[in-house]
Amino acid sequence: MAESVHIVRFPQLERAVEVPEGTNLLDAASQAGITFGQLCGGTGSCKRCKLKIIEGQVNGKNRSTLTPEEVSQGFVLACLCTVESPLTVEAPEQFFDGNGLETHIPTHPASKTQAVDPPNPLTQKIFLPLAAPDLANNQADQQRLLDGIVEQMCVETPAMDLATLKNLPRLLRENDWSVTATIATDRDGAKILRVEGGDACGSQTMVAADIGTTSIAAQLLDSRSGDILASSSLMNSQSVFGCDVTSRIMAAEKQGAAKLQQAVANDLNSAISAMCQTAGTKKDQVQAIVCSGNTVMCHLLLGLDAANIRRSPYIAVTTQPSAVAAKDVGIDISPKGMLYCVPGIGSWVGGDITAGIIETGLHTGNEISLLMDIGTNGEIVIGNRDWLMACSASAGPALEGAGVECGMRATAGAIERVEVRNGTLRLKTIGDKLPKGICGSGIIDLVSALLETGIIDRAGLFTETGKHKHILVPASRSGTGIEIAVTEADIENIINAKAALYAAMKLLLKRLALDFSSIHRFVIAGTFGNYIDIQRAISIGLLPDLPSETFEFAGNTSLAGARRAALHRETYLQLHGIARNTTYYDLMGAEDYVEEFRKALFLPHTDIAEFHMNGNNTQRKL
Amino acid sequence: MAESVHIVRFPQLERAVEVPEGTNLLDAASQAGITFGQLCGGTGSCKRCKLKIIEGQVNGKNRSTLTPEEVSQGFVLACLCTVESPLTVEAPEQFFDGNGLETHIPTHPASKTQAVDPPNPLTQKIFLPLAAPDLANNQADQQRLLDGIVEQMCVETPAMDLATLKNLPRLLRENDWSVTATIATDRDGAKILRVEGGDACGSQTMVAADIGTTSIAAQLLDSRSGDILASSSLMNSQSVFGCDVTSRIMAAEKQGAAKLQQAVANDLNSAISAMCQTAGTKKDQVQAIVCSGNTVMCHLLLGLDAANIRRSPYIAVTTQPSAVAAKDVGIDISPKGMLYCVPGIGSWVGGDITAGIIETGLHTGNEISLLMDIGTNGEIVIGNRDWLMACSASAGPALEGAGVECGMRATAGAIERVEVRNGTLRLKTIGDKLPKGICGSGIIDLVSALLETGIIDRAGLFTETGKHKHILVPASRSGTGIEIAVTEADIENIINAKAALYAAMKLLLKRLALDFSSIHRFVIAGTFGNYIDIQRAISIGLLPDLPSETFEFAGNTSLAGARRAALHRETYLQLHGIARNTTYYDLMGAEDYVEEFRKALFLPHTDIAEFHMNGNNTQRKL
Repeated sequence: MAESVHIVRFPQLERAVEVPEGTNLLDAASQAGITFGQLCGGTGSCKRCKLKIIEGQVNGKNRSTLTPEEVSQGFVLACLCTVESPLTVEAPEQFFDGNGLETHIPTHPASKTQAVDPPNPLTQKIFLPLAAPDLANNQADQQRLLDGIVEQMCVETPAMDLATLKNLPRLLRENDWSVTATIATDRDGAKILRVEGGDACGSQTMVAADIGTTSIAAQLLDSRSGDILASSSLMNSQSVFGCDVTSRIMAAEKQGAAKLQQAVANDLNSAISAMCQTAGTKKDQVQAIVCSGNTVMCHLLLGLDAANIRRSPYIAVTTQPSAVAAKDVGIDISPKGMLYCVPGIGSWVGGDITAGIIETGLHTGNEISLLMDIGTNGEIVIGNRDWLMACSASAGPALEGAGVECGMRATAGAIERVEVRNGTLRLKTIGDKLPKGICGSGIIDLVSALLETGIIDRAGLFTETGKHKHILVPASRSGTGIEIAVTEADIENIINAKAALYAAMKLLLKRLALDFSSIHRFVIAGTFGNYIDIQRAISIGLLPDLPSETFEFAGNTSLAGARRAALHRETYLQLHGIARNTTYYDLMGAEDYVEEFRKALFLPHTDIAEFHMNGNNTQRKL
Repeated sequence: MAESVHIVRFPQLERAVEVPEGTNLLDAASQAGITFGQLCGGTGSCKRCKLKIIEGQVNGKNRSTLTPEEVSQGFVLACLCTVESPLTVEAPEQFFDGNGLETHIPTHPASKTQAVDPPNPLTQKIFLPLAAPDLANNQADQQRLLDGIVEQMCVETPAMDLATLKNLPRLLRENDWSVTATIATDRDGAKILRVEGGDACGSQTMVAADIGTTSIAAQLLDSRSGDILASSSLMNSQSVFGCDVTSRIMAAEKQGAAKLQQAVANDLNSAISAMCQTAGTKKDQVQAIVCSGNTVMCHLLLGLDAANIRRSPYIAVTTQPSAVAAKDVGIDISPKGMLYCVPGIGSWVGGDITAGIIETGLHTGNEISLLMDIGTNGEIVIGNRDWLMACSASAGPALEGAGVECGMRATAGAIERVEVRNGTLRLKTIGDKLPKGICGSGIIDLVSALLETGIIDRAGLFTETGKHKHILVPASRSGTGIEIAVTEADIENIINAKAALYAAMKLLLKRLALDFSSIHRFVIAGTFGNYIDIQRAISIGLLPDLPSETFEFAGNTSLAGARRAALHRETYLQLHGIARNTTYYDLMGAEDYVEEFRKALFLPHTDIAEFHMNGNNTQRKL
């Protein structure tokens, strides 16, 4: 009997997909390029994949997480049901964070790279108009080629494989001794990837990508000028396997690393295609791709087994992988193009942080600086030109809006600012749309404002007896028709997150026999960090109470570092040097972590004296 | 209609082969593993493949090179006829120089390598009992492995491919953190070929091979002790494609390089199998093979196009190839085993000579030395610790017994010494057998003796008017029933050969503004050189008239150099340094070569004064 195949339509997104009967509905959506940013890895607990069946039959259990009312309206959790007939499916708008090709995440504006030396790309084509041999100039073909390369490029003699060598004599003679060599350099040295006849340089491009757990940002670069030709941002479609790195690792263990590798490779391929189209170039002109991301993202991209990263003693397969052929990981660029990963420091401090160090110049400072990247995992680096030490704190996704019931990503309609005017809360949404939920920066503001207005106390509890939630927007005025409220559980999640980050900073300083007053420069990296209100963040104890001029925002240094490495071999080598020489400190091994964490479970902190050094809090009239 | 297949039997050699009707008889013999050392590449001119058809039909022309008597006796030239029925075939015994598996070339006695530092092989397995990670020792798996390697071996951090990296976490954990890594080093650095669980070192061997145009000599080495476990010598079965390098290149151009590559790879595989059997080890324990040979042999081994080596301006594809996977050239050793070629100096001065330089210490001398390797091409190197210059002279095969009608290889029954007693010639054969022909050392003696006894004059002509040949052994007393005689044409070939070598030395000295008196040490390399009578060689002008204590014999330095490189990475790197830094001088570009050559076309030389410096000639009572 032939297997039945059903069409599943998502009319809101103008998407449809054909799947065999019995396919998981979440998988079907994923195949249609639709992701939901779910957190639970398909176990039915996060409710992110709640969909409404307009037409057709599904089979499956709907846990008690859905209300009887929702069930009667036709809502299901996609992860828990299977396709049993042709379907038409709809979803509450706020859950659509993006889809494979079109995304709501704001694209980083295309900007020129910082003024630096002219590009000396990691992989490049060079034209070699060689002299024809004669009896007086009778070098072997290979030596003639190698000498030509070393004359033009500052590299050690590059290696060359047998297949390329076999073709060399014919190529040289058929092209009157003028050929084009593609040279890739890695930390070990250089190699010739390809030799072509004549001047085949044409336009040469490279791709730099920041592979975040949630989203991917990529840029297409002109290898010669260093110009950014196009940019692309999209959701990391590994999200269907769970929202945080731990669920990704578990999914890879269960379903095979290849599945997650394909997901991210497909994302990169989509981004590359789109950017090439924008720039009017071709994929096979892309000579290399340089990716920066946390250690788990890097493992999953390379198809490496990340299982031991999530189990004590938290060991990576590698933090400094060598370049590999892009096609070996399913990335579709020039046939011989290479994939480089920005080297990382440890299992929980990845290449995105190494990139951050180099982009912010942490490794060149005379004074001591601190770099913090706030995310599901917050990474912290402290140091100067002589030494660097890094650690990671597992903050959970609350600060990104994901551990909060009304939380959402920073897209249109998200509450991004909460201010206090005349004792009441004033909300500002992205795009000034009707509010649909609250995003990371809004959450920090909200907790601070709730504290300022006395709605919650320093322990994060409602001061009004019997109160269990605080309504920000009633259903009638919300963009979704659903009330937007914050609960004590939400606030507890946020306090846990900020406490984890603060405890990590404290411990790192303690190991270094320093305190916050030693920090002359406090750099906040990551796209999310850009939207933080420093004073609000200090008031809840997420950031230390330092003079406001100490703080800087660095933006997406992961992408910028990948771009700089792509265009400058020296930067790539420097990144390896930083990755090797930064001390990685694993908090999991710190006995005093729990104590520091507990002390930080107040707003701003148990030890209030820590937050009266610079008077930041008094400015807020607490 | 099905193709007819016929059996061709060679009862003398206990060989038989089945071939389709119409197969060339030389090809059939080749398939049976029988080679003839033919010189002409199958064009019917050298007569080396003359065979007698005992039974059956062949089809083909027998050029006028066969006498009517031979034709009536059933002789044919195998290269010019095809198999048309089942055949039984016989050949005059002296033409059997050897066959694929069993050979008449004396095996080099197994001897210990010179006392040098303990081996540090080019490719080796090392056992790594690593520490299990914990929270305080939380390196990535790859870094743990690499640190373990660098601790045991003096190498730069080795490279590692993605496939090996993917397996690493499982291997480490399944084997309680004890693994065995196979590390290959090349001039560019080191790489990890393989990682196995536990202590998988076992017995480790390597193969060193001298790939001569005519014969191959190989040794199986214990990687740890450096001991020679077994030796093997066999004919280079590329001989069916012609005897000298030029005919081999032409055959590769016509029939494809792959065919010649397979021939030599099969020879090496035969030698490796035989040696492993002798030593009681297995082929897959062989970690690497290091080959030394002239530049053309190296090209054909690697499957490189050697066509431009034989055409002005005589350009090689490479003289310093990188190591390649042995399986990529069809050599059957350990699955990941590497093939290394000893680097050469120029198109006509190959790795065998670089090996000779290092083995004889030419590159370390304070005084100026000269190294000469006599063969079809004679290579000459002059220099000291500060500089080295090399050239090659195309002497032709006469000095090896091949350009002389009664010439044969140095096997049983070959006349190897000719002395003059009471004015008559006295002959000595190898093994004191009945004479069958004359080999290289005998030929030098013979010309010298003919000159000494006045049978020929200084121009190489018979002094007796009308004499066209000098009979050495009448048919009745020869081992083959065929008269052994030398003609004026034979003597002319020998004079041409020695003149080419002498002119090359003169020109090289001239370029260096030196003369023979500057040479403090004259080293003769190559197996053949060992058998030369120095005084006789001087008397005909093959060697310069230097004090006899100036001369040294070095034997097969090509094989010894390959062995030393296999066992010592430093030697391999030194060989590359020598290859790079030795100036290659191509005589083809020298306008004064012809003049020097002409001057040397006398016995010993036009300028007799050059040969009365040390009185060597007067000792011979000329």
